[in-house]
Amino acid sequence: MSGGGAPEPALTDGSSRLVVGTGVDTVDRPLAGAIAGHTVSLIAAEPVWALHGEAVAAPLDAHAGRWLRITIPDGEAAKTIDVAAACWRSMLDAGVRRDSVVVALGGGSTGDLAGFVAASYMRGLRWVQLPTTVIAQVDAAVGGKTGVNHGGIKNAVGAFHSPELVVAASAFLATLPRRQLASGLVEVVKMAALLDLELLARVEADVEPLLDGDPQAWTPVVAASQRVKAAVVERDPREAGERRVLNFGHTLGHALEGAAGGALTHGEAVGHGIRFALRLAADDGLDAGFVERIERLLGRFELPPLPPVGVEALLAAVARDKKATRDGVVWVLPTAPQAWRATVVDERRLRAALERFMTAGGPA
Amino acid sequence: MSGGGAPEPALTDGSSRLVVGTGVDTVDRPLAGAIAGHTVSLIAAEPVWALHGEAVAAPLDAHAGRWLRITIPDGEAAKTIDVAAACWRSMLDAGVRRDSVVVALGGGSTGDLAGFVAASYMRGLRWVQLPTTVIAQVDAAVGGKTGVNHGGIKNAVGAFHSPELVVAASAFLATLPRRQLASGLVEVVKMAALLDLELLARVEADVEPLLDGDPQAWTPVVAASQRVKAAVVERDPREAGERRVLNFGHTLGHALEGAAGGALTHGEAVGHGIRFALRLAADDGLDAGFVERIERLLGRFELPPLPPVGVEALLAAVARDKKATRDGVVWVLPTAPQAWRATVVDERRLRAALERFMTAGGPA
Repeated sequence: MSGGGAPEPALTDGSSRLVVGTGVDTVDRPLAGAIAGHTVSLIAAEPVWALHGEAVAAPLDAHAGRWLRITIPDGEAAKTIDVAAACWRSMLDAGVRRDSVVVALGGGSTGDLAGFVAASYMRGLRWVQLPTTVIAQVDAAVGGKTGVNHGGIKNAVGAFHSPELVVAASAFLATLPRRQLASGLVEVVKMAALLDLELLARVEADVEPLLDGDPQAWTPVVAASQRVKAAVVERDPREAGERRVLNFGHTLGHALEGAAGGALTHGEAVGHGIRFALRLAADDGLDAGFVERIERLLGRFELPPLPPVGVEALLAAVARDKKATRDGVVWVLPTAPQAWRATVVDERRLRAALERFMTAGGPA
Repeated sequence: MSGGGAPEPALTDGSSRLVVGTGVDTVDRPLAGAIAGHTVSLIAAEPVWALHGEAVAAPLDAHAGRWLRITIPDGEAAKTIDVAAACWRSMLDAGVRRDSVVVALGGGSTGDLAGFVAASYMRGLRWVQLPTTVIAQVDAAVGGKTGVNHGGIKNAVGAFHSPELVVAASAFLATLPRRQLASGLVEVVKMAALLDLELLARVEADVEPLLDGDPQAWTPVVAASQRVKAAVVERDPREAGERRVLNFGHTLGHALEGAAGGALTHGEAVGHGIRFALRLAADDGLDAGFVERIERLLGRFELPPLPPVGVEALLAAVARDKKATRDGVVWVLPTAPQAWRATVVDERRLRAALERFMTAGGPA
């Protein structure tokens, strides 16, 4: 395996300072600087607080003017307007002012919710993200997207509001179940396949320690993934063009995730979404060896089988995709290793490909 | 009186194109350009739609790809998270995408709500504001502040999200009751006293036609007020410094408005807030003739008397002011005609001044 315990140098996605390190003490110094003397609203789910609260309470006690802890539901259940409204209410009742700071401790859902809470409270507070899951560390914490679900649509309501600081301590990942580590690794593969073949090779080499949650293996993967994502976001902060690359696997992935009703994690659904996109891309001439390479890697992640969902229901869900334009739903398809295009796929072709995929598309 | 029917040249607050004119047809051409071919979510309260819907439906029919009308409660009742959530739901159910446009038709509350709806729907839609009240035309529509009330705090949740276009047709003002016109004129006086003595003189000269809702009198006042506000906002878009001038009269005004429980309009409460701020400023040496000049002008607006509210309740409400910093509540006080400073007022002095004002502070 590769990697090591030395902290990576801090980088930035243009708006956020990104600090990556192995030990939980990676958090201390940057957090102290960001909150010095200010009121802090700490937003976390109970199980995350039970695991990692101690590492965060110490710098808060030492450096915040005062701090309040706001408990939210764990996971995706946090991403509702009602939970956001309850957070705002807690902050108002505690007299939290606009010169205060929100600190989010948790996974991608906690960050999405807390970022939206920070973005909208009195028209915008500074905030700090302390991501504790793979998806949050490698992807969600970089780029400033925040939001909650509404009306059955993911991230239907939200804001672009970058955290001032993101501290990713890979030691947080050591407590995660293997399934969640694998799901997170799908997002790494998503970026690596289209943007960073060196990172792809590193994941291929270290799959086992990564799936075991070895912090030493994760630190360089987190750092490289953040670098890739930060570069994309920097070139396209508002998702006008190039940032769409990050949607690779997500067009069908979101639809599958919704339709599976909890049977697939986000990452697992995206994994299948990547597999489907690769088949569309293969029909367009993508090198079969590369398709096979990615399929083989995803095959090591132990993805659950495709859920028994009707093709028409999936097509309808895809059509409601938030990133649809007047021209239709845009698919991100690789054209070669580390190259891609965004394209609208003809509906007849899409239906036929999806029928084949859903009947015979299980992992090889 | 002064003024006339010729449309004023469009200006900008840096983010919004601001068009002012007298007739309702002022709306047609700029609106057509902003919505061309796009899906439009038109947000309006029923009474406003009954009065002015026709003027807006025609360009929407002619130029929108398609449009849906979303009805919200009239006035301040629109500014809740629940109303925002209902708007988002209507838009999601109608398949509104991120390349669509929100159009707000109504007063300041409608604009505040619709702007927040636009800011947060799929992380931000373009929007157009068609203000139909004085406060909305001269003040609220300029500067990009949007928001809803929560936990008893005004604008506790919101965003900075400038409309792409604001079209102010002063003919919309002709249907307003005299009391509402007077309330709106308070916001004009607020800006004129501290920033534009020429505008102050124009208001003094035209009080009667303005309180009668004469569009010809209003067009130049709206245009000049927008110019003043746009210049302030341009220099301080995020309310870090100079923009605080716009808070003149609002520190006590917001507290009075809340405490009066509907007995005072926003403008009336701000009118009293200006009167109180002038007394604080007079104690600090502000020229007595200027204090008297503003008092005399506000005296022509027929403000209702101060509500019977306890001083301690007002002090507590002031202390919860959203613009409070770690140092305390910041008051905007004139130092001379067209000059001001922002300052924290010692609590003992504040209590004493407020006791005098609330017992003997009714309009002269």
